[in-house]
Amino acid sequence: MSLLVIGTVAFDAIETPFGKTDKIVGGAATYASLAASYFYNKTKIIAVVGDDFPQEDIESFNEHHIDTEGLQVKKGENSFFWSGKYHNDMNSRDTLVTELNVLADFDPIIPESYQDCEYLMLGNLTPQIQQTVIKRLKNRPKLIVMDTMNFWMDIAMDDLLQTIKMVDVLTINDAEARQLSGEYSLVKAARKILTLGPKYLIIKKGEHGALLFHENHIFSAPALPLAEVFDPTGAGDTFAGGFIGYMAKVGTINFNNMKNAIIFGSALASFCVEKFGTEKLKNLTPQEVNERVQQFVELSSFEI
Amino acid sequence: MSLLVIGTVAFDAIETPFGKTDKIVGGAATYASLAASYFYNKTKIIAVVGDDFPQEDIESFNEHHIDTEGLQVKKGENSFFWSGKYHNDMNSRDTLVTELNVLADFDPIIPESYQDCEYLMLGNLTPQIQQTVIKRLKNRPKLIVMDTMNFWMDIAMDDLLQTIKMVDVLTINDAEARQLSGEYSLVKAARKILTLGPKYLIIKKGEHGALLFHENHIFSAPALPLAEVFDPTGAGDTFAGGFIGYMAKVGTINFNNMKNAIIFGSALASFCVEKFGTEKLKNLTPQEVNERVQQFVELSSFEI
Repeated sequence: MSLLVIGTVAFDAIETPFGKTDKIVGGAATYASLAASYFYNKTKIIAVVGDDFPQEDIESFNEHHIDTEGLQVKKGENSFFWSGKYHNDMNSRDTLVTELNVLADFDPIIPESYQDCEYLMLGNLTPQIQQTVIKRLKNRPKLIVMDTMNFWMDIAMDDLLQTIKMVDVLTINDAEARQLSGEYSLVKAARKILTLGPKYLIIKKGEHGALLFHENHIFSAPALPLAEVFDPTGAGDTFAGGFIGYMAKVGTINFNNMKNAIIFGSALASFCVEKFGTEKLKNLTPQEVNERVQQFVELSSFEI
Repeated sequence: MSLLVIGTVAFDAIETPFGKTDKIVGGAATYASLAASYFYNKTKIIAVVGDDFPQEDIESFNEHHIDTEGLQVKKGENSFFWSGKYHNDMNSRDTLVTELNVLADFDPIIPESYQDCEYLMLGNLTPQIQQTVIKRLKNRPKLIVMDTMNFWMDIAMDDLLQTIKMVDVLTINDAEARQLSGEYSLVKAARKILTLGPKYLIIKKGEHGALLFHENHIFSAPALPLAEVFDPTGAGDTFAGGFIGYMAKVGTINFNNMKNAIIFGSALASFCVEKFGTEKLKNLTPQEVNERVQQFVELSSFEI
């Protein structure tokens, strides 16, 4: 029984109104697996890095009980590198550099010890690679969650639709839901997207929270209003990782558990943005996480 | 004991992607008083119209138990007229026509029978007129709620700040909160605005719901995700009217009651946008309102 996270493990160089970093460790699988590890201690990653990736950062995964057997290290090659600069509103950013490096011909090899996968998190990657992972698993996982982005809608829509058809939960943001469906109303967008395969759709709205759609049910989760968003990088991946980690912990797939999973994912994402990169996410105590979740309860509860 | 609503009673001509209207009855006081009337049957309006305003529309207020003694009818003059066209996303609009007419020299006269006012809703108007109403009441109401807009921040900031200082609850949208405070973060914006006088601040976020700020407490209310927004005109006024109407009904001013008032106000606003103008708002049953409120409960409740 394990939770498998596939995605990028990479270097980021980030500039925000609050400062800038040199190359620091980032990537969808990094954020998602760290987040999941707070709820589930059988988390395993599939990703690829170059031999420029420090051994101590690989060990840092292991300290969080994240299995790195599926993390390929390519000799003589460099890790995926992204550099971006956030605008003052923190809601938009410019990509300054994208160097695919090892990612260009990433073949996601699944170690035999990973074949006990029950929960699969497909972090943002080419839909083709995401699909390959599903196909290489001998048994279909109990829950497949897929994150993606507008970029794949622009350049690989057919692949994307094929992969979406194979998953249980799709997580995208509001603009992407509109692009994917051609509908402005998120209710209409969700109705269309739920005909494409997934039984659950999560629409992430950043500072406005998230919506979960399933059949005719909708759950609206708040975002924690924050005085300062220091660095939004990885918030969506952290949310998704926290979400599937919580689902793996509770083990029963239903709407009510997913509501809670969204709150736990949102709580972790609210920590993620408080410091650069994974800094905050690497050093949380269970008590801090629970207190943050309690803030979400207070924020949104009312009694009529 | 009464709830006093001041604002415009006017004609609107509205164009949306779904159609267009001739001149129909609108105005902040119209929407707010209709909304309040669902919760409180001692609602009274102060406003001004020309003698082009149909008697049957005045009677329509009375049918909702809204007192119109304070509705001045100016002989030989025309009512305030606004015409606007909504863009496809329904979140932005162009003003096509604004004819102030009777509003140009509106002097808000308060009938003696209105001096029992306990709840005062200052609908969007010049801050100077809003302030005059407060000063002309012999006793300071138990609760003063003020709505305003960016226009007054642009042209009458000093008057606006003077009036804001006199009220208990300010309702503005997120862009206006940012403009008023000079802060992008809504948490920081709220902290600043709460030093200007009001003890409570409601930030309206349209399809993303609303935030209530009071001391160090924050409540995040969801908006009901709608498949179709037919006409957003008056939604903010309806929200504010429903909010203060509910507060008048329960009678005790505290954070928990305000949370519920926001849900009831949001429920009425969600009806308002389903048809042109006040059409939907004029013919609701208490059962419909309660069922809609129940939808808000289901939408946002979770149990951790």
